[in-house]
Amino acid sequence: MTVVRGAFVQTRPKFGRNEENIESAIRLVSRVDADLYVFPELCNSGYAFTSKRECLALSESLNNGNSVEQLLSYSEKRKCAVVAGLAEKEGQRTFNSSVVIERGKILGTYRKMHLFFREKLWFSASNRGFRTFFLEKIGCKIGVLICFDWFFPEASRKLALEGAEVICHPSDLVMSGKAQVGMMARAFENRVFVITANRVGFENRGPKDRFRFTGMSQIISPDMDKLAAAGKTETAAKVAQMNLDLAKKKYVTPLNNILSDRRPSYY
Amino acid sequence: MTVVRGAFVQTRPKFGRNEENIESAIRLVSRVDADLYVFPELCNSGYAFTSKRECLALSESLNNGNSVEQLLSYSEKRKCAVVAGLAEKEGQRTFNSSVVIERGKILGTYRKMHLFFREKLWFSASNRGFRTFFLEKIGCKIGVLICFDWFFPEASRKLALEGAEVICHPSDLVMSGKAQVGMMARAFENRVFVITANRVGFENRGPKDRFRFTGMSQIISPDMDKLAAAGKTETAAKVAQMNLDLAKKKYVTPLNNILSDRRPSYY
Repeated sequence: MTVVRGAFVQTRPKFGRNEENIESAIRLVSRVDADLYVFPELCNSGYAFTSKRECLALSESLNNGNSVEQLLSYSEKRKCAVVAGLAEKEGQRTFNSSVVIERGKILGTYRKMHLFFREKLWFSASNRGFRTFFLEKIGCKIGVLICFDWFFPEASRKLALEGAEVICHPSDLVMSGKAQVGMMARAFENRVFVITANRVGFENRGPKDRFRFTGMSQIISPDMDKLAAAGKTETAAKVAQMNLDLAKKKYVTPLNNILSDRRPSYY
Repeated sequence: MTVVRGAFVQTRPKFGRNEENIESAIRLVSRVDADLYVFPELCNSGYAFTSKRECLALSESLNNGNSVEQLLSYSEKRKCAVVAGLAEKEGQRTFNSSVVIERGKILGTYRKMHLFFREKLWFSASNRGFRTFFLEKIGCKIGVLICFDWFFPEASRKLALEGAEVICHPSDLVMSGKAQVGMMARAFENRVFVITANRVGFENRGPKDRFRFTGMSQIISPDMDKLAAAGKTETAAKVAQMNLDLAKKKYVTPLNNILSDRRPSYY
């Protein structure tokens, strides 16, 4: 039996204050003991960009940017894994990305496949697809989705078919409560754990760029049980014990394996 | 604006009493006025077969079987459409099917694609795939899923991609509350209405064949609103007004059409 302690941190970033935002997120997560910590989407920069130039200025390299360095150092010190949503710069392009780190080492990155609303104006959508990462020290295979990716059941399904036991879901959700229901379905229909780390707070950067972020971060089991949850407005870090055997067991009755029962030629 | 009055009927069939079961279902639905009525899965025969021979004996032709005749007559008299789950016999094979009827005319049938548990021993799984039906008098395109089909997000997606505005979901659900959450996600992620008609009651036909059916039939809007719902143990028929414009509008923001935002080459 492999039990992984998974955690989300629910933060309230201040727009454009990258270093301070990562510092306060780390202060929050330091309060709880976990093996795997999931941070919100764009938790370095904040969300509501008003121009491509601004987005480029606040985005960072995921090789050696300051935010990644802070997270690497934290994960090394705490001997843990971290999945964090970061505004990524590569040359003159920007991506809404997540970095996957284990004990001071970058395992890789995921770039958001389904951009939401005006993110389409600031970020390039990924053409790299979905991928899983094996956390060697923990012995756990994870997949990453970012915020609006949740809306597309194909995304979670793809990760489950590739063996993800835990879906890490950095988010800046604005539709109150919808993704929480959706991710309960995703956890159950794929028999995976889901850690949604959402942010809270309000950003008002002009009439087109007003967003209230809805919190309610949660950890859901493959049986659809809510193992941990946060409120709508608080900052918080919470942990749950995830027994990975539950995610390996794809049978819901002795005659129904939910992956091999699929009828892909008809979909 | 096309508003369709959709209804579910939540019944408590008695095993093996086909004629009586359809009669009492019709008595129940007669209490409410609707354009489209959805009945539970296997609402003619009951659920817990103990042999293939028994299943064959209680299944009926969907061309001219007695249950279909009763439903045709009801739909003609009430000038309505009916989707009802029926045990179907074709030659020596049986299917867990739904018939789609409008005003005394059979529009077609759907045979369950994903069989649950010991249904695999009694029924043949469909090799016909998923299909939609246009209700001409009502002006509404529907798709049909049966019970456990809900578990597979690909099924609802397929129907939405083929233009279904309403998913009719005859069910004999035994996992309490899971499908209700799942179908809220399906309604929202596809922007369709979902009418789940579940049954109640208990069937005990031996140690391997004991089932408690969980009720909680519901009608969900494309915005994930619960428009109607029944209790866990009552028989009931309930109606909701479904504004089809909501299902035609696939945009969730001015920049996000949830069908064209899909990235099928990566799924």
